[in-house]
Amino acid sequence: MSDNNYYTSEQHGDFEVYELGDFVLQGGETLRGATLAYTCYGKLNSEGDNAILFPVMFSGTHAAMAPYVGKGLALDPEEYFIVIPNQLGGGLSTSPHNTRGPFHTSYFPDLSIGDDVNAQHQLLTHLGVKHLQLVTGWSMGAQQTYEWAVRYPNMVERAAPIAGTAKTTNHCSLYVDVFSEALTSDPAWNNGVYKQSSDVEQGLRRMAHVFAMMGVSQNFYNDEVWAENGFSSKEDVLKGLWENWFLPMDPNNLLSMAKKWNSADVSLHTNGDLSAALQSITANVFVISFEQDMFISPADSLKDQQMIPRSELVSIPSPWGHFTMLGISADDFQAINGHLKRLLETQSL
Amino acid sequence: MSDNNYYTSEQHGDFEVYELGDFVLQGGETLRGATLAYTCYGKLNSEGDNAILFPVMFSGTHAAMAPYVGKGLALDPEEYFIVIPNQLGGGLSTSPHNTRGPFHTSYFPDLSIGDDVNAQHQLLTHLGVKHLQLVTGWSMGAQQTYEWAVRYPNMVERAAPIAGTAKTTNHCSLYVDVFSEALTSDPAWNNGVYKQSSDVEQGLRRMAHVFAMMGVSQNFYNDEVWAENGFSSKEDVLKGLWENWFLPMDPNNLLSMAKKWNSADVSLHTNGDLSAALQSITANVFVISFEQDMFISPADSLKDQQMIPRSELVSIPSPWGHFTMLGISADDFQAINGHLKRLLETQSL
Repeated sequence: MSDNNYYTSEQHGDFEVYELGDFVLQGGETLRGATLAYTCYGKLNSEGDNAILFPVMFSGTHAAMAPYVGKGLALDPEEYFIVIPNQLGGGLSTSPHNTRGPFHTSYFPDLSIGDDVNAQHQLLTHLGVKHLQLVTGWSMGAQQTYEWAVRYPNMVERAAPIAGTAKTTNHCSLYVDVFSEALTSDPAWNNGVYKQSSDVEQGLRRMAHVFAMMGVSQNFYNDEVWAENGFSSKEDVLKGLWENWFLPMDPNNLLSMAKKWNSADVSLHTNGDLSAALQSITANVFVISFEQDMFISPADSLKDQQMIPRSELVSIPSPWGHFTMLGISADDFQAINGHLKRLLETQSL
Repeated sequence: MSDNNYYTSEQHGDFEVYELGDFVLQGGETLRGATLAYTCYGKLNSEGDNAILFPVMFSGTHAAMAPYVGKGLALDPEEYFIVIPNQLGGGLSTSPHNTRGPFHTSYFPDLSIGDDVNAQHQLLTHLGVKHLQLVTGWSMGAQQTYEWAVRYPNMVERAAPIAGTAKTTNHCSLYVDVFSEALTSDPAWNNGVYKQSSDVEQGLRRMAHVFAMMGVSQNFYNDEVWAENGFSSKEDVLKGLWENWFLPMDPNNLLSMAKKWNSADVSLHTNGDLSAALQSITANVFVISFEQDMFISPADSLKDQQMIPRSELVSIPSPWGHFTMLGISADDFQAINGHLKRLLETQSL
């Protein structure tokens, strides 16, 4: 267990903590006294059926997704009860950096996307949610979205996986390996046993550079798109966006999420048959793809979408690539919000 | 100076060595007793005007490009006198690993693409070449091709830069920084002072993984295109192709070339005006682009091409991405050879 004041409400705004108790992981181990951090917006109706679940991405918390929730937006708290659960391992929920005993630091057990969904299902049941109007999430949030749609067809009315796949692709897995290797290349990583996360600063910076290279498109850099979004130079993007994002984080937390990312696969429920898993989805689904995404290519999203019965592929051409979801460009934010709104108004695809 | 039996004719086939003498670099320093390694095919005619120059890419030698030379191919030694010069810093020519004295290892002076072209011009003059029917090269070979076309308009009849730009783009430069950082992250790198290059094995492997991720397309991995090309798995691609390629190389040589790659810019000849530099080209030019190239996007190639008066953009859609040029797929080899043949038959664009 290491202190890290990044993982606090001062940094991410207030959040609730649900006690999962002795939480049995899909891998068989038990996280004793596990917790799930989350935020809620709006009010659950008496039927318990106006809920939206909005799980978060790698290295993100509810704070990163909260801007998509607001009056007049698709995720409108005057209409819906919106729950943003933080990932297990993500730093606010039970995670390597805040766990004592045999599971501290890199001894934390491997997590799966299914573990997140189990924890979220437990939370939603506790909150009285019976039906989800929408599950949506970006990147690893999309992985959780697919897992929900496959496992709970009767509960999930609509799903919008954004820039993520139902099973981690070979290339995306290579990407996860490369940034993990950049992080652990720092001798201060020391197999996960360090005094403070900032000891691993060189590794965190290297990891940030890999994200910088793959996270946005070539023309974001080559056409200096950064200038339209408040950055003064390529160097300023590297420091002000990417290093600034990762430097305060805990390497063991990041690697716990990275391993989970790599293992995502809804076909675990259908003996490895991805098509069978996706064909079993009954929700109306918008597969939202970013055209210049180097993590998840439009071809990857199209393959998933074509296996889902009631589905549509939606494509957004932003130079922000995978990170279009950050909505740093107002056009991107409006596009994503617009598609979510249209899906929420859809009764049947 | 370190011994490394990779940089020998046993590994790369026979080559000639031209003595450049005391070679003054564009940076002002002098490489004393510098050498340029090269190979020739065919016979120079008495007018000295049937020559083709075919400079090589990052980490490559003449051996990697030699398959494109042969009877019946575009680069036909029965018709043309074909010269493949190795890069300065590339291991066979004067390079960090084979230099003694003040310039040994990482103390080797910074090179420029202009230095390569100066050395090649000296060699061609020595060989009696008066006119070049074609200059073509891939990646860093394309950078040398652009430099030739801009600086020697009266000498270069045709040019085919393949998957490279006239000035290194911001994103490509970030890529070079990321793989350089992967290499130097190894403590055994020790600022370039090591006993043997294999001491830096972990860094070389990490660098290989970055190339694996960016060098070929997503669908090369996701659609298992490797299987059509003699690889048994993604792991086999990582080991058998990428690690196998880089592990025997010298880190200082690689970093010398990487810095040169990053500094490539023909607008150095026109006070920073890239358009003026490219507009001054008089050669017939095919800008050859690989559609799924993550180093150099088709948009990057298009921008260069649009500034060149007598030019055409040629696009090849292979899943091999930047490494389409290796011609591991017979279709790719035929496509590239076909375009070079068509350019050589072109009198005026």
